[in-house]
Amino acid sequence: MKISVIVTLKKNVLDPQGTTIKKALEGMSFNNINEVRQGKYFEIDIDEKNQRKAEEKANEMCKKLLANLVIEDFKIIKSL
Amino acid sequence: MKISVIVTLKKNVLDPQGTTIKKALEGMSFNNINEVRQGKYFEIDIDEKNQRKAEEKANEMCKKLLANLVIEDFKIIKSL
Repeated sequence: MKISVIVTLKKNVLDPQGTTIKKALEGMSFNNINEVRQGKYFEIDIDEKNQRKAEEKANEMCKKLLANLVIEDFKIIKSL
Repeated sequence: MKISVIVTLKKNVLDPQGTTIKKALEGMSFNNINEVRQGKYFEIDIDEKNQRKAEEKANEMCKKLLANLVIEDFKIIKSL
């Protein structure tokens, strides 16, 4: 079962990478952009047929390795 | 309106970063992982109330800057 995980910076954490992308987009004449924030995306293919169990495992992986919970949040979503 | 974009490597493109994460997870005794692939995630806050128009703009941004279409695919999703 494939599980998708999105890791984003917490709202109050500065995102200089996002700001740089915003400036680059504005330089390409995309206007009306309020904000860009960048995050990470992981697609984990777990050998587990029970969705709840697979999500639980992914949750643990995020807590232990994929996300830095001091500055990042994560969301587990059904694979897109 | 906030639009989320996920950029992933195409299926046939090697993902050494994902492989490294898989190995790290296995080293932490997470077993039964078939594959890990890493991608990028962008949250773009566009000053545009019409969802279709906002998505079109995000689509153009991906084509022009956010994704390298030679090796990457992108998906635009409603903000999570």
